[in-house]
Amino acid sequence: MVGRWQVEGAWGVDQLRWVEDAAPPEPGPGEVRLRLTAMSLNFRDLLMVTGRYNPSQPLPLVPGSDGVGVVEALGPGVAGWSVGERATPLFCVGWPGGRLPADAPRHALGGPLPGLLQTWRCLPAAALLRPPAHLSDAEVATLPCAAVTAWRALFTEGGLRPGQQVLVIGTGGVSLFATQLAVMAGARPILVTRRPEKAAAAAALGAEVIVAPSGGWGREVRARSGGGVDLVVEVGGAGTLSESLAAARPGGTIAIIGVLDGMDAHLSLIAVLMRGLRLQGVFVGSGEDHAALHAALRAHPTLRPVIGGHHPLSALPEALRALERAEHLGKLVIEAG
Amino acid sequence: MVGRWQVEGAWGVDQLRWVEDAAPPEPGPGEVRLRLTAMSLNFRDLLMVTGRYNPSQPLPLVPGSDGVGVVEALGPGVAGWSVGERATPLFCVGWPGGRLPADAPRHALGGPLPGLLQTWRCLPAAALLRPPAHLSDAEVATLPCAAVTAWRALFTEGGLRPGQQVLVIGTGGVSLFATQLAVMAGARPILVTRRPEKAAAAAALGAEVIVAPSGGWGREVRARSGGGVDLVVEVGGAGTLSESLAAARPGGTIAIIGVLDGMDAHLSLIAVLMRGLRLQGVFVGSGEDHAALHAALRAHPTLRPVIGGHHPLSALPEALRALERAEHLGKLVIEAG
Amino acid sequence: MVGRWQVEGAWGVDQLRWVEDAAPPEPGPGEVRLRLTAMSLNFRDLLMVTGRYNPSQPLPLVPGSDGVGVVEALGPGVAGWSVGERATPLFCVGWPGGRLPADAPRHALGGPLPGLLQTWRCLPAAALLRPPAHLSDAEVATLPCAAVTAWRALFTEGGLRPGQQVLVIGTGGVSLFATQLAVMAGARPILVTRRPEKAAAAAALGAEVIVAPSGGWGREVRARSGGGVDLVVEVGGAGTLSESLAAARPGGTIAIIGVLDGMDAHLSLIAVLMRGLRLQGVFVGSGEDHAALHAALRAHPTLRPVIGGHHPLSALPEALRALERAEHLGKLVIEAG
Amino acid sequence: MVGRWQVEGAWGVDQLRWVEDAAPPEPGPGEVRLRLTAMSLNFRDLLMVTGRYNPSQPLPLVPGSDGVGVVEALGPGVAGWSVGERATPLFCVGWPGGRLPADAPRHALGGPLPGLLQTWRCLPAAALLRPPAHLSDAEVATLPCAAVTAWRALFTEGGLRPGQQVLVIGTGGVSLFATQLAVMAGARPILVTRRPEKAAAAAALGAEVIVAPSGGWGREVRARSGGGVDLVVEVGGAGTLSESLAAARPGGTIAIIGVLDGMDAHLSLIAVLMRGLRLQGVFVGSGEDHAALHAALRAHPTLRPVIGGHHPLSALPEALRALERAEHLGKLVIEAG
Repeated sequence: MVGRWQVEGAWGVDQLRWVEDAAPPEPGPGEVRLRLTAMSLNFRDLLMVTGRYNPSQPLPLVPGSDGVGVVEALGPGVAGWSVGERATPLFCVGWPGGRLPADAPRHALGGPLPGLLQTWRCLPAAALLRPPAHLSDAEVATLPCAAVTAWRALFTEGGLRPGQQVLVIGTGGVSLFATQLAVMAGARPILVTRRPEKAAAAAALGAEVIVAPSGGWGREVRARSGGGVDLVVEVGGAGTLSESLAAARPGGTIAIIGVLDGMDAHLSLIAVLMRGLRLQGVFVGSGEDHAALHAALRAHPTLRPVIGGHHPLSALPEALRALERAEHLGKLVIEAG
Repeated sequence: MVGRWQVEGAWGVDQLRWVEDAAPPEPGPGEVRLRLTAMSLNFRDLLMVTGRYNPSQPLPLVPGSDGVGVVEALGPGVAGWSVGERATPLFCVGWPGGRLPADAPRHALGGPLPGLLQTWRCLPAAALLRPPAHLSDAEVATLPCAAVTAWRALFTEGGLRPGQQVLVIGTGGVSLFATQLAVMAGARPILVTRRPEKAAAAAALGAEVIVAPSGGWGREVRARSGGGVDLVVEVGGAGTLSESLAAARPGGTIAIIGVLDGMDAHLSLIAVLMRGLRLQGVFVGSGEDHAALHAALRAHPTLRPVIGGHHPLSALPEALRALERAEHLGKLVIEAG
Repeated sequence: MVGRWQVEGAWGVDQLRWVEDAAPPEPGPGEVRLRLTAMSLNFRDLLMVTGRYNPSQPLPLVPGSDGVGVVEALGPGVAGWSVGERATPLFCVGWPGGRLPADAPRHALGGPLPGLLQTWRCLPAAALLRPPAHLSDAEVATLPCAAVTAWRALFTEGGLRPGQQVLVIGTGGVSLFATQLAVMAGARPILVTRRPEKAAAAAALGAEVIVAPSGGWGREVRARSGGGVDLVVEVGGAGTLSESLAAARPGGTIAIIGVLDGMDAHLSLIAVLMRGLRLQGVFVGSGEDHAALHAALRAHPTLRPVIGGHHPLSALPEALRALERAEHLGKLVIEAG
Repeated sequence: MVGRWQVEGAWGVDQLRWVEDAAPPEPGPGEVRLRLTAMSLNFRDLLMVTGRYNPSQPLPLVPGSDGVGVVEALGPGVAGWSVGERATPLFCVGWPGGRLPADAPRHALGGPLPGLLQTWRCLPAAALLRPPAHLSDAEVATLPCAAVTAWRALFTEGGLRPGQQVLVIGTGGVSLFATQLAVMAGARPILVTRRPEKAAAAAALGAEVIVAPSGGWGREVRARSGGGVDLVVEVGGAGTLSESLAAARPGGTIAIIGVLDGMDAHLSLIAVLMRGLRLQGVFVGSGEDHAALHAALRAHPTLRPVIGGHHPLSALPEALRALERAEHLGKLVIEAG
């Protein structure tokens, strides 16, 4: 079975169709052809497939932002890669490093660009990285969106230092990586969750876990942290932003990386102004961020991504439904089989 | 006439009372007694006096955050100051430099601490600076809130570089200083205003002026600036934030420094996230910021603060009413007489 | 006359040979062919041609790091460029932005890579920029090494702010650009020179000029600047470093960008340590630096590069000898004719 | 026995005299009187006492930069401290935070200011910090110079991130703290030493240890680290600087913090320039650095300072001679007894 999953005709998980490919595509100038071996799912994929991320995106669309594969062919002018090597694409193929390019969102895999939930993908050689050798394909495939976002939020934007306190919201993919990476960096993660059944697993990663009460938790986090946390990895969006502001110390940073609980927030500008807070949007990260994450993982071989389930590529729709039910803990991996 | 203005009994400009002082206060350990010669008003003073800034502030309160005076007496243990020297206090007397202290708002002059709209004020020697010699007392008195805020927004937080574009909103005190300082730094200020009668004066300071249409102006600014401005000095608050976000380039910064048009904003988190925007609250600035501003003004003796009117200290209530009418352009100065 | 200058057989200006090209080269995948219209010389070119820069560089070598031309042909896979457009190459074709790549020196034009002192050069599209439209070809050609280096030293590494003081050494290309860019940014350049005949021209650019005494000038600069300059643009190397250290304020930066007076310096580590000094090597700059310089020049159309002479491409050896005599002021330009 | 050690008449360990104090000193305005309980020695103390640090320092001088004590009395105007609390002074009493003050070296304890090797010391309240409760007096006393210097080098100046590689030279106090703090931060310390007998202890702290050959070790470190380390904590000075430069990656930082092997170095400016290296002088650190170190230690209670020996205050000369012999590993502590 070689081919691709694509959303056809209309949005929806039910609109996913498997299209067979007769032959592999030829890599163009500067491109490398990967045969993908493992992918992972993000909440972004679900939003994309269901038309909530960008309803004006043309169809058909091959979804999938995260993956890893084997180099199968080199296009004209490619140097530095050999057939048979393992390679993982950047989520944003037009952002090798430096400041965010104006057109970065147009270079994202899995929408608007064709994604990785297929057998082959030709990509510019400059958009590929060599993953850490000690990680399995499934583990490497979990990194490009969730772990790179957590890395950029904590280090590139957050400048996290040992002993600082980081608030992590919920137990999604970014939040678990943020917890693990904060521990790696000698910082102190505090994780709030509404799901007591996931508290133990989060605590085992090194977080101080607060099972959130029905009302707000911002003041409790501020009190427990002795005046507010240095950094918030804010994935909740509209539903949690005011609590995140209350939880941050004066001069602290709230990294805006997700909108799981709503996109249009109320924001108390007085709090932002009087307490010198910083809200920093984080659009995943650059190739430099991705490579720095790889280097850190190489130095910490015992830190392994949390994987919440494995599905064969043939069962993509079922995997997306499992993602929506959110009963798992960790990244859902798709195996190319 | 020696004494102090204070809000007594209830909030309101009508509640300002002049209280005579029989004798100057004695400076405590580490303190310097200033005899104030000139002060300036900020919109903050109007909010404070009318109880909108912090209704739980105890009364009576001497308002006034900005001023300059002459050293009249030194308390025990003071070194480095001599009687007769000119000195200007930091707005936030507990923030000499470095990162924002958690309790910074508690050390602000003119609420919660007694302010400068009085004859004498004893202050810690560490909270005083020597102003540039070429500036008049009235000019020096315009700087501590408005100009220091503009400085910190542009340089300390904004990292402004030559050739970058800065959006300035309206023609208030911070906005005029931001315009002048951006020009000084080789950057390009774009100023939007709803008041066509003030456009010429703003243009004379070096801004490209856009008279804002009744609808939004964010997309127009983005188009005119070739893809969005690098930095927004956001003083409007809830009434302008969404336009400011639309006007900023990907990766740009919106410095949150005022709430003239409302305190509780709607915020599109998707825009913040997808475009990697940064919202940075700016609580005036530190002594380091204030001293750096002084150094820059010394190097640019032709750049003079815009003064929109002079009032004697005895006419403080009338001056505050003039501030509220907002028919002037520039800072309103209070002369100690 | 179409072809190339190359050093053949041995090092030396006398070893430069003009080689005719029968036909233009074909651009490879991702490449653009430029027909060069103007180039400029750097001291680096003289060091290179005479074998002092890198004696192990293989010959023949086409020298020349700086230039501008017209797009004549597009290789496979190139998007975003059209035939007939004007384009200027990055000095370091492998550094679009972000942090310095480990192999950056291997991607420099004019050694080790073939340079621009020829009729045609095919280069990766990603290594080209559109220059400011108001600048002549000769002016654009002066920028890639000298002006980009000055930009990076002042802003990317130096974080220069208005009112700060910058020490500039001598009247070479980088020093003149540093003077002009510091003035543009509202900073105060102080220029020391041993050549009184060039003082007036430097002063006309906005520098405070000190004609250096035979002994050291570091303490004088420190005194005149009121305690030391914030930044030194250090081009002298071994011959001036100790004076530069003496001239810098505590916490100041010395940008190491040239070695005109010697490569192996004595360094007082006590001064570096006790005064918290920073010595920062600057290897020209990235594409981001180059583009930011362009943006700043667009915003300041009256700031024009200082050109010290024009030579036709056919007279390259004479131009290099003029560069060595150093009787000019400003960049030496080579016109393709 | 209450009193002070001071160098009298001439430089030298033999010139240390114990002077009895009849009564404790009265704290001045804003000051707190500490009764010291533990101190620690730095190589700086040995240089100071023997006149090698600053021969023009007036005598007598009480040495000692590091210590901790109990608050015994409060001078006029002191708030925020109570009698009986434990407090530790900043090494540089005039640098609470922000950028290095020009006169910082004039505010250092143990020269030029009177030091802590005595029974009592009155100090400004603003120059004191509350140490982590879980550390003993001896442990707290080891921190102000060595650990704060390591902190500032790694984090404030070095911006160290997880997975980065740090070269540490030798097994002195700063080097051991740098090793421990780098491990805490998820970075990888590589320690070079000429003393094989200390290698095992350094490895136990988490460093990869290289026993240095008689020749240079810079290239070996570069090779082992896969292209060079991100940061060097350079304590050797003239004797090791060229090796440190060879060991650093392009764009890397060499923190200049000590001169154990000589003060006047040779420096290859070509290496600095071509490889974009940064040499950053580190003059211990600010109060903000010291407080951030305390916060990190509170979060890592198992990380304890390495103590190489305890001496009673009465045996200071013997302790200094032990410091010079350098047979110990870790900080030498002086107990007030």
